[in-house]
Amino acid sequence: MLRLHDNASSGNAYKVRLLLAHLGTAVERIEYNTDAGTTRTAEFLRDTNLNGRVPVLQLEDGRCLPESNAILWYLAEGTPYLPGATDEQGRWQRAQVLQWMFFEQYDHEPAVAVARFWLAYSGRPEAFADRLPERQAAGNRALAAMERHLDGREWFVGSGMTLADIVLYAYTHVAGEGGFDLAQYPAIEVWLARVAAQPGHIPLSLQG
Amino acid sequence: MLRLHDNASSGNAYKVRLLLAHLGTAVERIEYNTDAGTTRTAEFLRDTNLNGRVPVLQLEDGRCLPESNAILWYLAEGTPYLPGATDEQGRWQRAQVLQWMFFEQYDHEPAVAVARFWLAYSGRPEAFADRLPERQAAGNRALAAMERHLDGREWFVGSGMTLADIVLYAYTHVAGEGGFDLAQYPAIEVWLARVAAQPGHIPLSLQG
Repeated sequence: MLRLHDNASSGNAYKVRLLLAHLGTAVERIEYNTDAGTTRTAEFLRDTNLNGRVPVLQLEDGRCLPESNAILWYLAEGTPYLPGATDEQGRWQRAQVLQWMFFEQYDHEPAVAVARFWLAYSGRPEAFADRLPERQAAGNRALAAMERHLDGREWFVGSGMTLADIVLYAYTHVAGEGGFDLAQYPAIEVWLARVAAQPGHIPLSLQG
Repeated sequence: MLRLHDNASSGNAYKVRLLLAHLGTAVERIEYNTDAGTTRTAEFLRDTNLNGRVPVLQLEDGRCLPESNAILWYLAEGTPYLPGATDEQGRWQRAQVLQWMFFEQYDHEPAVAVARFWLAYSGRPEAFADRLPERQAAGNRALAAMERHLDGREWFVGSGMTLADIVLYAYTHVAGEGGFDLAQYPAIEVWLARVAAQPGHIPLSLQG
């Protein structure tokens, strides 16, 4: 069985759980208290991820794959969540999926997810108060780019849900916890509901 | 002919020029003065990249692809720079290439490239002096992770140069401009020389 080195409140880890749920693939979860440094121990850095982060997907033979979006790509090859055609259309769609996956990790996550962590999970939001406006401005720029792209579209790439939707859903649907007002982004709200209505969808919360 | 919306000093844009040089593919360059906001005009946001950044690859039919690492993937499919085998070995190698490409955009570029920009290109390094130590610490963590991975390896993934090496080379080889001391990372220094010795290599500087 696949093993997922996991964190219950991480949107990056949730992406992997969400795709696995859609694929109907069972996984053994190993929960880490990331705030307590359990992903920075010498053993974890040596055996699991030299970069000291979760999620990490561990194959049955022990090999470990870090980086949420690389894990998603590995799991989605050959499935409807990643366009697989070898023609020019498939090549273009794969590039577009990656465009949004890199946008998510560079422009969206460091703003939307970090603001959420500071406000809702750090236990000391006041310590980050002076840096919050910059992250919220960056997060609103990322959300505005998504809103413009979704105008007139049902999905980020092509005519069905792909990895692009899954990775952007993860932190966008809890952006309110980071102080973002999703009511400003009506196309995003409709798209969020569309993703959540897909058969096989699971919530971020493990208790949900 | 392909068109590259470009910036001469950007490592993200250089990645694309470097791969194109290795592929022997000609491209028409369009230079942007990013400091002057030329990638944030209404026209650029509408026609080229709604996220307001370069590089952007424009196909002959006018379609535009943003995000340096998505551009690289699009150009490298079917070439030796991206493992293409449809078996489990190829699937695993593609995931590892993406692992390092996402590491590059999430952990490496926001630290190493930003410190370089502040110190060497912003024209007002003093304005960022209080925030520089945090970025340099993050950059040194990223470089240390690369150093550990390269210990005993010639290339980041598999037995030849892939997109993983190209994307990490771009800002690592000019990390000194961001105040990083590469002499602390001997495996990185040997690997940088290996990348630069490849036939078809071109420097970042367009005058080089």
